[in-house]
Amino acid sequence: MFKQLESDPLGERHPAREVLTRLKLNDAGLIPAIAQQHDTGEVLMLAWMNREALDETLATGQVCYYSRSRQALWRKGEQSGQVQRLHSLHIDCDGDTLLLKVDQTGPACHTGRRSCFYLQVERDTVVVTSDPEIDPETLYGKDRGQ
Amino acid sequence: MFKQLESDPLGERHPAREVLTRLKLNDAGLIPAIAQQHDTGEVLMLAWMNREALDETLATGQVCYYSRSRQALWRKGEQSGQVQRLHSLHIDCDGDTLLLKVDQTGPACHTGRRSCFYLQVERDTVVVTSDPEIDPETLYGKDRGQ
Repeated sequence: MFKQLESDPLGERHPAREVLTRLKLNDAGLIPAIAQQHDTGEVLMLAWMNREALDETLATGQVCYYSRSRQALWRKGEQSGQVQRLHSLHIDCDGDTLLLKVDQTGPACHTGRRSCFYLQVERDTVVVTSDPEIDPETLYGKDRGQ
Repeated sequence: MFKQLESDPLGERHPAREVLTRLKLNDAGLIPAIAQQHDTGEVLMLAWMNREALDETLATGQVCYYSRSRQALWRKGEQSGQVQRLHSLHIDCDGDTLLLKVDQTGPACHTGRRSCFYLQVERDTVVVTSDPEIDPETLYGKDRGQ
């Protein structure tokens, strides 16, 4: 399927169901999903979706992942209130990765930081590049999870 | 390790080796790496790195992935000339995903498109959102691989 789409010109359309059913999930039935703030371009996080999470995200416009640690659907922001509204959904050339352009309310990261990518390698050191915007205890209480 | 870093303030530094050795690779020894054009913010692709690919990337400043299909190091652009120069490397809060801000020469995608994410879901259809910048046969010859 994805091999066939490679030679399609700009603007060519296919029924979404035909394409989505051919996504290449991994052995655990999951596909990685990158979340990017739609207007600033900031990459916020990478999480995983199963088919049910993807279907729910497309149906509701509110991003839902699959939590590998909890082995359950993870409606982003359900506990913290820091939801992601889906702006647009993109599939890569191999059909094995999703890019979600989202509108993120507040911090995406469970540490209270805007982005999960707050550690930067600079030669021989790793530097913390942002502070939390909100105390994670405020977001999740003292028994905070992911 | 990554749990401990969560409460570190902006600007805190740790020896890179201590952090990098604790990255959480998957069962196959791989970690997903998102490539983003450093100045425009465009997400170009997602690929995988093993420890050797990461070490080489940091040592040379030229991005090297691990090709799961070829089961070998994949020096991006080796065949096509469309190299990625590493601008900065970022690690996420859980230590299980990398974000590479890169300077991509020409197209990142093996189809000749700038980004691999050229399929967009729009309600009931999937739309092709870009054309190749270069014919893939020019990049890879007729027997083109990834």
